[in-house]
Amino acid sequence: MTAYRIEKDLLGTKDVPIDAYYGIQTLRAVENFPITGIPPHVEMIRALAAVKKAAALANVEVGGLKKNIGEAIAKASDEVLAGQFHDQFIVDSIQGGAGTSMNMNANEVIANRAIELLGGQKGEYLHCSPNTHVNMAQSTNDVFPTAIRIASLNLAQGVVVELDKLRLALVEKSQEFDQVIKMGRTHLQDAVPIRLGQEFSAYAKVITRDFERVTRSLDNLREINMGATAVGTGLNADPRYIVNVAEHLRVITGLDLKRADDLVDATQNTDAYTEVSGALKICAVNLSKMCNDIRLMASGPRTGLGELNLPPRQPGSSIMPGKVNPVMAEVVNQVAFQIIGNDHTISLASEAGQLELNVMEPVLVFNLLQSLSILQNALRVFRERLIEGLTANVERCRQLVEMSVGVVTAINPHVGYETATMVAKEAIQTGRSVREICLERGILTEEELDVILNPFEMTSPGIAGSKLLFGE
Amino acid sequence: MTAYRIEKDLLGTKDVPIDAYYGIQTLRAVENFPITGIPPHVEMIRALAAVKKAAALANVEVGGLKKNIGEAIAKASDEVLAGQFHDQFIVDSIQGGAGTSMNMNANEVIANRAIELLGGQKGEYLHCSPNTHVNMAQSTNDVFPTAIRIASLNLAQGVVVELDKLRLALVEKSQEFDQVIKMGRTHLQDAVPIRLGQEFSAYAKVITRDFERVTRSLDNLREINMGATAVGTGLNADPRYIVNVAEHLRVITGLDLKRADDLVDATQNTDAYTEVSGALKICAVNLSKMCNDIRLMASGPRTGLGELNLPPRQPGSSIMPGKVNPVMAEVVNQVAFQIIGNDHTISLASEAGQLELNVMEPVLVFNLLQSLSILQNALRVFRERLIEGLTANVERCRQLVEMSVGVVTAINPHVGYETATMVAKEAIQTGRSVREICLERGILTEEELDVILNPFEMTSPGIAGSKLLFGE
Amino acid sequence: MTAYRIEKDLLGTKDVPIDAYYGIQTLRAVENFPITGIPPHVEMIRALAAVKKAAALANVEVGGLKKNIGEAIAKASDEVLAGQFHDQFIVDSIQGGAGTSMNMNANEVIANRAIELLGGQKGEYLHCSPNTHVNMAQSTNDVFPTAIRIASLNLAQGVVVELDKLRLALVEKSQEFDQVIKMGRTHLQDAVPIRLGQEFSAYAKVITRDFERVTRSLDNLREINMGATAVGTGLNADPRYIVNVAEHLRVITGLDLKRADDLVDATQNTDAYTEVSGALKICAVNLSKMCNDIRLMASGPRTGLGELNLPPRQPGSSIMPGKVNPVMAEVVNQVAFQIIGNDHTISLASEAGQLELNVMEPVLVFNLLQSLSILQNALRVFRERLIEGLTANVERCRQLVEMSVGVVTAINPHVGYETATMVAKEAIQTGRSVREICLERGILTEEELDVILNPFEMTSPGIAGSKLLFGE
Amino acid sequence: MTAYRIEKDLLGTKDVPIDAYYGIQTLRAVENFPITGIPPHVEMIRALAAVKKAAALANVEVGGLKKNIGEAIAKASDEVLAGQFHDQFIVDSIQGGAGTSMNMNANEVIANRAIELLGGQKGEYLHCSPNTHVNMAQSTNDVFPTAIRIASLNLAQGVVVELDKLRLALVEKSQEFDQVIKMGRTHLQDAVPIRLGQEFSAYAKVITRDFERVTRSLDNLREINMGATAVGTGLNADPRYIVNVAEHLRVITGLDLKRADDLVDATQNTDAYTEVSGALKICAVNLSKMCNDIRLMASGPRTGLGELNLPPRQPGSSIMPGKVNPVMAEVVNQVAFQIIGNDHTISLASEAGQLELNVMEPVLVFNLLQSLSILQNALRVFRERLIEGLTANVERCRQLVEMSVGVVTAINPHVGYETATMVAKEAIQTGRSVREICLERGILTEEELDVILNPFEMTSPGIAGSKLLFGE
Repeated sequence: MTAYRIEKDLLGTKDVPIDAYYGIQTLRAVENFPITGIPPHVEMIRALAAVKKAAALANVEVGGLKKNIGEAIAKASDEVLAGQFHDQFIVDSIQGGAGTSMNMNANEVIANRAIELLGGQKGEYLHCSPNTHVNMAQSTNDVFPTAIRIASLNLAQGVVVELDKLRLALVEKSQEFDQVIKMGRTHLQDAVPIRLGQEFSAYAKVITRDFERVTRSLDNLREINMGATAVGTGLNADPRYIVNVAEHLRVITGLDLKRADDLVDATQNTDAYTEVSGALKICAVNLSKMCNDIRLMASGPRTGLGELNLPPRQPGSSIMPGKVNPVMAEVVNQVAFQIIGNDHTISLASEAGQLELNVMEPVLVFNLLQSLSILQNALRVFRERLIEGLTANVERCRQLVEMSVGVVTAINPHVGYETATMVAKEAIQTGRSVREICLERGILTEEELDVILNPFEMTSPGIAGSKLLFGE
Repeated sequence: MTAYRIEKDLLGTKDVPIDAYYGIQTLRAVENFPITGIPPHVEMIRALAAVKKAAALANVEVGGLKKNIGEAIAKASDEVLAGQFHDQFIVDSIQGGAGTSMNMNANEVIANRAIELLGGQKGEYLHCSPNTHVNMAQSTNDVFPTAIRIASLNLAQGVVVELDKLRLALVEKSQEFDQVIKMGRTHLQDAVPIRLGQEFSAYAKVITRDFERVTRSLDNLREINMGATAVGTGLNADPRYIVNVAEHLRVITGLDLKRADDLVDATQNTDAYTEVSGALKICAVNLSKMCNDIRLMASGPRTGLGELNLPPRQPGSSIMPGKVNPVMAEVVNQVAFQIIGNDHTISLASEAGQLELNVMEPVLVFNLLQSLSILQNALRVFRERLIEGLTANVERCRQLVEMSVGVVTAINPHVGYETATMVAKEAIQTGRSVREICLERGILTEEELDVILNPFEMTSPGIAGSKLLFGE
Repeated sequence: MTAYRIEKDLLGTKDVPIDAYYGIQTLRAVENFPITGIPPHVEMIRALAAVKKAAALANVEVGGLKKNIGEAIAKASDEVLAGQFHDQFIVDSIQGGAGTSMNMNANEVIANRAIELLGGQKGEYLHCSPNTHVNMAQSTNDVFPTAIRIASLNLAQGVVVELDKLRLALVEKSQEFDQVIKMGRTHLQDAVPIRLGQEFSAYAKVITRDFERVTRSLDNLREINMGATAVGTGLNADPRYIVNVAEHLRVITGLDLKRADDLVDATQNTDAYTEVSGALKICAVNLSKMCNDIRLMASGPRTGLGELNLPPRQPGSSIMPGKVNPVMAEVVNQVAFQIIGNDHTISLASEAGQLELNVMEPVLVFNLLQSLSILQNALRVFRERLIEGLTANVERCRQLVEMSVGVVTAINPHVGYETATMVAKEAIQTGRSVREICLERGILTEEELDVILNPFEMTSPGIAGSKLLFGE
Repeated sequence: MTAYRIEKDLLGTKDVPIDAYYGIQTLRAVENFPITGIPPHVEMIRALAAVKKAAALANVEVGGLKKNIGEAIAKASDEVLAGQFHDQFIVDSIQGGAGTSMNMNANEVIANRAIELLGGQKGEYLHCSPNTHVNMAQSTNDVFPTAIRIASLNLAQGVVVELDKLRLALVEKSQEFDQVIKMGRTHLQDAVPIRLGQEFSAYAKVITRDFERVTRSLDNLREINMGATAVGTGLNADPRYIVNVAEHLRVITGLDLKRADDLVDATQNTDAYTEVSGALKICAVNLSKMCNDIRLMASGPRTGLGELNLPPRQPGSSIMPGKVNPVMAEVVNQVAFQIIGNDHTISLASEAGQLELNVMEPVLVFNLLQSLSILQNALRVFRERLIEGLTANVERCRQLVEMSVGVVTAINPHVGYETATMVAKEAIQTGRSVREICLERGILTEEELDVILNPFEMTSPGIAGSKLLFGE
C-alpha cells in the first residue's frame, strides 16, 4: 500500500506518494499531459539541474538565499547532474505551459532532495521551497530556454564530432578509390567516365560544409537569458545575480555560454533553435542523397549496378536466402526523413510564439533534442558499419566504362557535335562500341582513338587528345 | 554473470543471453540500429503476434506446418497478444531493412516461447525455427505492412471515438452558449455580432468532418497483403493459405480486414498510410486553429479579450502568483504541430519506395502510430479538462458588443455604404457610439435604431429592420 | 499621355486611368501588394464573375436591386466569364485582406462595364456602384470562398479526367507487358521474378485510388457559403436571396454546388481546401515514386538496368552527343515536389485562420489552383509523351532473371532455408548459377529444377513444384 | 500567316517561326513542358547571358573560338543582359532535364542573335551554332548551377538591403516607443509590465540575426562550377579556360564569385541552395511571428487589445463600412507561408539528386528565386506601409497596466509567493486592484506600494523596492 503526503498549491491539495521527490505540480502535469509517454530527454534533466545549481550559487552571493539552503540546492543539483533521481522526472515531453511543468518538476525534485540534505522530510517546504528557494529570481521563461540551449549544445557537440569523423572516413575512401575508373551518370543515364575516388571526395566536401554549418549554427545558441525572469525585463532579478548566474553556468557546464544582450529578445524569440534545426535538416538532405547513391551503386548483386560492395550486417530477408540489404544506408535515410519532419514541427512551433513568450517550446525542444540524438547515432553507425567497410567492385566498374557510349563526348572537340551524335546514335542502336564505329567510318585513326578515348584522361579537366587539335 | 547460448545465421555466430526469447538476428539489429532508444509501439508488437498466429493456423490447415508446432506458435502468439514478453521486443523503432528486424524479433521471441511450450530449451530451433516455422509462407514484406495496418486500425478506432466525443461536447457547448451575444471578429478587427453558440457550432461542424475524414481514410487500410511474400507474387505461398490467413486475422483481430486484390500493389505502395496521416494532419490543422481561437477568447483576465473562462488546471507560472494559463489548449497546439511534422516524414518515407518495396516503412509506421496515439490522448484531455469545463463571460461579451462600431454594418441597407462609412469613421475617431451619431445627425430615428441595431437580430440571416425598408 | 479620372473611398482620392475598368480600391491594392507579379488565376476571375452574376440575379428577384442594373451586372459578368476584361484583374495573387482586393477588383471591373452597358461613363458609380450594387448582400467573406470553390472544382475536374486517362494507359501497358518476365527487386537488391505487367498493374491500382481520393475530396468543396456575408450570420442578406443565389450559381457554373448548412462554419473553416490539397499531395507522392521507378528501370542505356525504353522527347545534353534523358518523368517528379510544398503552404495558411475568418485565403488559393493546374498538365504530358510510348526491353529483362540468384527462394520449401542460404552464398561468391550448384551438389535433380526454377511459375501465388512436395 | 524555317536535331526536324530567336530545342521543350505557364525568372535569363558571354570570351582566349564569333556571342549576350529578347525565353520554369532546355533556349537565342550580328540569317548555324559555339566547353551541368548562383546572389542582395532597412526602422520605433509602458503577456495572459520600445527592440534584434544569417548563407553560393562540364571532371574544358571563365564572370556580374575547388562536388550537390532557402525560411518564421504580434496588438479598434494603430492602407471590407484591416501584416504572413512551403519543395528537390547531377534543379531554382523576390518585395512594403507609420495608443497601454493583476509579481520578494498568490486570486475574483487589497489587508503600506508597484521600475532588471528589503 502506497503511503502519501498531502501537498497544496493555488488550486487545492493532492496526495503525493510519500517517497516521491516530485510534488503536487508535477502530479498535476502528469494528469494534464498524458501525451507521448516519453519523459524529458536526459540532457534536458541535466541542464535543468545545472541551471538550478547556478541560480542557487548566485542567489547566495547576492544575499537572496541563505547559504545553507543554497548549498543544499547546489548539492541536490549535483546529484541530478550525476544521474540520480532521473526517474523522478515524470512529466511528458509534450506539455502545455511553455515548460512550466518541466521546471516545476525540477524545482520540486531538487527542493525535496535539498530538504533531506538539510535534515528534513520530503514535503517540508519551509526548509526549502520549490518556488521561493529553488526557483528564486527565476521564471520558467528564462530557466527553460537556458536549459534547452545547454542540452542542445551538449548533444550538438557529439554531432559535430561525428560529422568530422565521417568526413575523414570519406576522405580515406576517396584516396583508396582514387584509381577506380567508372562511368559517371547524369539523369541515371550513362554520361562520361569519373573516378570513384572523385565521387567520395565530393561526399567528403559536402559533409565538410555540413560540419561548418552545424558548428556555425551553434553560435546564437550560446546566448542564454538567465535573469530575464517572466518577460525579459528582469523583474525580481538582482542585476548582480544576472551577471553571476551566467558565470556559474559557464563553469558548471563547461560551455562557452554568453549572457544575451537583450533579454526580452532572448526570452521570446526561438530563431536560435530553428537555426540549429535548419542546419541539421540540410545535413539530413545531403546524407539522404549520399545514401541513395550508395544504395544505387551497391544494387545487385547480379541485376543492379554492382559497383560497390557493402559490408554485410544482418541477413536481409526472412524469406529470400542469402540476401544482404543495405540496411545501414536505409536507416540513415530514415533518420534523415525524421529530422526533416522534426524541422517542420520546430518551424511551426517557432512561428507560434506570441508577444513575450513562445509557449510551444516543449514540442520544439522535444524534436530538436531528438534530431540531435538520432543524427549523432546514425552518423556513427553509418561510418563504422558501412563507410569504413566499403569496397569497390573494380572490375565491374571498368567493364561498364568499356561498354558505354558516353565516352563519345570526348571526340566532340575533334569531330564536332553533329558527327559525334551520329556515332553515338549508331552505337546505341547497334550495340557496338564508339571505337569500332569511328574506325570503320574512318572518322578517327586507331592512334587518335587511343589518346582520345583513354578514360583516365577523361576524368581531369582538358580536352582529351588536345595535342591532336592544337599541336603541343 | 550472464550466461549465454550460441546462435548462428548467414553471417556467423553470436552469444545470446541464455534467458532471452529473442535470438541472433534481433541482437544484430540492436547493434546496427541504436538510433532512438524507443522500442516498437505496443500495438505493433501485438499486431505482429496476431499475424504470426494467423499464419500458423493457416499453415497447419494447408499441411505446411505440423499441428503441434502450429499450436505452440499460436499459443506463444496469444501470450504476446495478452501482453507477455513485450520486454523481449528490443529492436529500435527506426531501423534499416524494411522491418525485417522487427519481424525477426517477433519470429525469434515466438519461436523460443513455442519451443518451451513444446518442451525444449530456448535456442533449440529444431523444435521450431524462427524462419522455417514461425515465418512459414511469409516475408517481412507481407508481415510488416499487415501488422502496420492492424496496429493503425486499432489505434485509429480510439481516435475516431474521441473525435465523436469532442464533437458532442462542442455541440453541448454550442447549445449552452446559444444566447451569448458577442462581437464577431475578422482580421482580428471588430466585425458584426455573433452568438458564442454559433462559434461553437462551427467548431463542432469541422470536427464532424474530421470524424468523417479519418473514418473514411481507414478504408484502404483494411486491405492486407498476407500471402504476397517477397514481392507480391505469392511465391512459396499456397493459394489456400492466402485465403485462410486473412480469414484468421479477421477473427483474431476483430477488424474488418480484406485480402488485397492486387498483392503486388499492396506490397509496394504505402498510400494507405499517407492517406490516414493526411486525414490526421487536416484534423490537426483544424484543432490548432480552434485552440488558437480559444486561447485568444480566454486571453486576459484583465488585458485581453476575456470572453471565455477556462477551467484552471495547474498554476501557470513559477514566478507570477495567481497566473493560470490555457495549458490544455497549448498542449493540443503542440500535438498538432507534431502530427503535421510527422505527416511530412511519412510523405518523405512514402515517396522513397522503390520498385517492389518501400524499405522506409519503419520510420513511416513510427510516425503514424505516434500521431494516432498522441492525437487520441490529446483529444481526450482537451475535452475532459478544457471544453467540458468552459464557461462564457457573458457580461464581458455583451459589453464589447455595445462598445463596438461594427454594428454600423446593419444600417448599410437603410442609409447606403457611403453614409454608413461616414458614421463609422466618426464613431472610431470620437469614441462615441454608432447609435448616438445616427441620432444626433438625424440619420435614423430612435425607433428605427432600436430595430436595426438589435444585436440578436444581426446574428441570423436577414436585413435587420427590413420591414422599415420594404414594409411587411 | 494617360488621362485620368478621380475616384474616392474611405481613405481619400486617387487618379485612375480613364480607360481602366478597375477603380480606386484595385489601385490601392496594386500599391500595397507588389509581391509575386502574378495576377489571379483565370479560373478565379471567371468564378468571381459567376458569383457576381448569380448575386445580381438573386438580388433582383428579392427586390434589392433594380432590374436594369441587375441585368447590366449580369451581362458584364457574362463578358468576364467569356474571357473579356481579364487584363483588368491586376491585383497580385498574394495579397493582404482575405481577398477583399480581388473581390473589389471584380466589383469595380463589373460595375464599370455595367455602367457602360447602362449608357454611362466609367467612374459614374451612381449608375452602378461596386459596393452598393455589384457587391449587394455580399461580403468578401462569402464571395471569395465561394469563388475559390468554383475555381477549384473546375480545375479539379480536369485533374480527375487526366487521372482516369493515366489509369487506363497504365492498364493497357500492364496488359502489353503481361508476359515480360523480369527480376523483382527489394532494397534495390535482386529478389524474385515478377512480370513487368504486374508492376504496371500496381501502378494502375495506386492511380485508381488517387482518382477515388481526389474525387471524394471534392465533396466538401461543393458547399458554398453565399449569404454568409461578413461572419456567417447572414446579416444584410435576405433569406430568399440566400436560397436563390446558390440556385443561380448551380446553373451558371454547371457544378453541383450546395448551400452550406452552417454558414458560420463555412465562412471561417478552410478544411475543404486542405482536404483537396491533401489528396493531391498523396497523388504527388505516388507519382513521384512511380517516376523514380521508371527512371530507374530505364537507366542505361548500357550501364544501368535498361529494362524499359522511353520514347525520346528531346536531345538530352548540350555536351554529350546522343544522350536522351527521361525528361518527362523528371518533370513529373518536380511537379510532385511543387505540389507537396504547396500543400505545406496551404496547411500553414489554413492553420492561421482566426475566429470568424481565415485572412490567409489568398496565398491558400494561389497554391491550390497552381497545384491543380500543374498536376493536370503534368498528368497529360506524362501519359501522352512517356507512358503511351513506353516499350519493354524484353531480352534484357530475361537475361537479368537468368543471371540472378534470387530465384533460390523457390527452392526453400524443398530444401529448407539453411540449405538454400548455403547455395545462395556460393552462387554469389562464385558467380555461378543456382541451378548449377544444386545439380553439382546433388541437392535437386534436373527434372525437379526445371519445375521449381521456372520463373513464370514464380510470378503467381503458390509453391513452385508443390507437387514434388505434396504429390498431386 | 506565320512563316517558318526548318531546323533539325538528333530526333528530327521542326518548323520554327522565321522571326524567332529560339530554335528547335526550345520548341521541343515548350511541347514537352506546358506546366506552369511561367517563364524563367528575369534574373535567370540575365545570369545565363552573363555565363554565355564569359564563356565566349574565355574560349576566344584559349583559341577554341574564332574571335569574330566570340565577339558576336558576347555582344548578343550583352543585349540580353540589357533586357532585350527576354520574350524569346519561352520554356517553362518547371521542366525536365536539369535545365538543359533553359540552357538550350539561351544558346539558341544568343546564337541566332550572334548570327545576325555576323551578317547571317536566323537559323544559319554554320555562322554560329548553339551547341558548338555558344555552348563551347560547357554543359548544362555547369552552366545552369552557375546561373542559379548568379541570379540568386543578385536577388539576395536586395533581400539583405531590405532586412537592414527593416532593422533600422524597428530600431527607430523602439526608440520612439521607449517610454510607452504596457502590459507584457505570456500565454496571452497578463504577465508583468514591459515597455513597447523593448518589444520593438526585440524585433530589431531578431531581424539583425536574420540579416546575418541570410548574408552568411550566401558564402557557399559564390562557388561556381564553370569548367565542370558534364560531371565535374572538366572533360573537354581547357584548364586555362576554366580559370579565365570564372574571372570574366566576376567582372561581368560584379559579384565576388569563386571557382569551386572540387568541381565534381559543385556539380552534384545543391546544399548551397538549401542553405540560402533555410536562412530565408527562418526569417519567414520570425516575420510571421512579428506580424502576428502586430496584428494582435492592433486588434480592435474597440473589442481588441488596441495598443497599436496601423496606418490605414485600403478600405477593409466590402460590406462593413469604416473597417480598416492590418493588410500589410497579413500579406507578410502569407509571403512567409509561401517561403516556408517553397523551402520544403527545395529540400525535396535537393534530396532527389542522384550520383553526378541533381536533375531537379529547375523546380528548385523556381522556388528559390520566387522566395528571394517575394521576400524582398514584402520586406519593403511592410516597412514602408506599416512599420514606418505605426503609432502607439499610449493611453490604452497605460490603462491596461493599471487594470492588471500581473503587477502582483513585484510584491513576491517582499511578501513571499504564497501571500502574493492569495492577493492575486482575490484581485482576479473581485475585480479589485492589487494595491487596494494589499492596503486593506495591511500587507504593505502605501509608501511601500508606491515604490514596489511602479510599473516603469518593473521594466528593468532588479527587485522593485529592493531597498525596502535589503536597505541601501
